[in-house]
Formats: sequence, structure tokens, C-alpha cells
Amino acid sequence: MDFSIRAANLEDCKDISRMILELAEYEKVSDKVKITQRDLEQDGFSKNPFFHGIVAEVPEQHRTKEGHSKIGYALYFYTYSSWKGRAVYMEDLYVMPEFRGKGIGKALMSKVAQLGLAAGCSQLDFTVLDWNKSSLDFYISLGCLDVTAEIGYHCMRCQGEALQHLAQP
Amino acid sequence: MDFSIRAANLEDCKDISRMILELAEYEKVSDKVKITQRDLEQDGFSKNPFFHGIVAEVPEQHRTKEGHSKIGYALYFYTYSSWKGRAVYMEDLYVMPEFRGKGIGKALMSKVAQLGLAAGCSQLDFTVLDWNKSSLDFYISLGCLDVTAEIGYHCMRCQGEALQHLAQP
Repeated sequence: MDFSIRAANLEDCKDISRMILELAEYEKVSDKVKITQRDLEQDGFSKNPFFHGIVAEVPEQHRTKEGHSKIGYALYFYTYSSWKGRAVYMEDLYVMPEFRGKGIGKALMSKVAQLGLAAGCSQLDFTVLDWNKSSLDFYISLGCLDVTAEIGYHCMRCQGEALQHLAQP
Repeated sequence: MDFSIRAANLEDCKDISRMILELAEYEKVSDKVKITQRDLEQDGFSKNPFFHGIVAEVPEQHRTKEGHSKIGYALYFYTYSSWKGRAVYMEDLYVMPEFRGKGIGKALMSKVAQLGLAAGCSQLDFTVLDWNKSSLDFYISLGCLDVTAEIGYHCMRCQGEALQHLAQP
């Protein structure tokens, strides 16, 4: 199937917001999504954006029955490893279910890898849920390392009242 | 003990580079550190920096026998959650062994939390090695969540030849 990958722009935020919710539903956590289209517009497309995005599009004739032609996306931003320097983090990688198995996910991830290498990054980081076997298998097939399983890194988070309390001088 | 926390500047890169190596030695991975003082200067203190830093300093009379007065640091950068929006990531938190147990680590982390909240972030993320029981206990005591243990997130990485290969169109 024909598809194209391009940098996301302000006008894509509505579709990205829709797909973020679809992904969260797949991950069974849609109640946790607080992000709105407006947040994405403000945080991703103003000066000093907090993230960047790319979208996958299919031609008119392959639109979904709901009329969607933007059928996948990835969000990414630049981070830093104190061991290895510049890195790129892929926050989300999503392709709508009916468009899977056509290389679109890999093409999105490949684009993030290209952008990262062009910016001088030596690694591409992301997280995956341990029960999401098909995604894990996909990433392992690409030669990715499960840093948690191999080295023992745990993702930690401080939020809500704990964060407010921690910030008290 | 008296100490102060302040934003890192270009002149701190030599000490930060030294402490990055000390931390890696503690984590038993000093062979993995490729970062130099020059990398830190370039990536942290030019336009569009890849990270920010803060350092902890003690007064002259408390210097180490090697003459160090910069005795702790944290590196951080802003990231993005597609569920909750703006976030801050703490890449490193380190206090030299002889200065531990005096609240310096907590003060550094508190500063990162303050800076994150001021920038509109709703969470502070970081990683910890599963065998590093004293650090894990410290973070749990602050109300932090072990996202890997609780929700099942695994840190994944693509690097080296796998990254080069992935980036091929």
C-alpha cells in the first residue's frame, strides 16, 4: 500500500490527539489521557517545542470508512545520556489496526532513527509494556535491546502530591 | 553541613565529567562512559542545549582532600508524555560518597522538581538500577512510583549497527 511519512504540523494535532486516544485504548489506559488537541498545538508547535512529531498518510482511496487518511504517527524528542551523549526518545509509535503489517510502523520508526542520527544521536530509546508481546517481538526483531530485562533499569516517576511535596524547599 | 545548589555553567563541566565517571564506577559501568568534558560543554551550553544541569557545592573548609568543592550534580531535560503532557526527566543524580546522608541528594532532586513544576510539568521521570536497593528505597520514601514494577514498562534501546540499519530507508 502507498503511504507517505512527513513531519507533523499544527493541522495534524486533531488526528494525533485522536490516535493518542486509540493507542491508550489499546494499552487499556484511556482514562489516563489528559492531553488535548490544544495541548499538542501549544507544546509541540510553539517556540522551544517539548516534542516533535511525524505522521503517516495514505492516499484518498485508502481512507478509513470514517474518512481518516492520517493513519499513524510517532512523537519524539531529544534527550541526553550521561554515558553516551545525544539521544532521541520515541514517546509513541502507532499505526491504526487496519493498516498494520504493511511496514508503516517500521517506516515511522526508521524516520525517527534517521532524524536522530542526523542530530548526532547515538541511541534511540523508548518504552514498551511487558504484556505487549507483539510490539516487543517487533522491536527485538529490529535488533533493539530490552534494557530493563538485560541490565535491570526500572522506570521511576514522581507525580501528583509526591512531586509537589518534593519541590518544597 | 552548609551546601548550596545552583544552575551549572560551562566552568562546571570538568567537575560534572569527573562525577559522571564516579557515578558510572559506582554503577560498575565506567567502561561505558564515552562522554568528555568537551561534549558536555558543547551539548549543554550552546544554543538549544540537549540537557541542563545543577551542581551542589560546599564551602572551602569542607572541600575534599583532593580539593573538590563541587560534590554533587543532577542533569535533567524536558520531555513529553502523550498522556499527561510536559514532563521533566532526571538523567543523573549524584552526591560524592563522603557527602551522603546530609540531604544534598534530596535537595538536588527537589530543585529539579521545582524547575519542572515551574515549566508546567506534571511528572518527574528517571530510571534506577534494580540492584541499587539504597537508591530505590530513597526514591520510594519520597513517594515515587516504580513504573516498571507497578505497570510493566520496559526501557528499550536501539543503538550501534541496529540503529544504522533501522535508519536505512
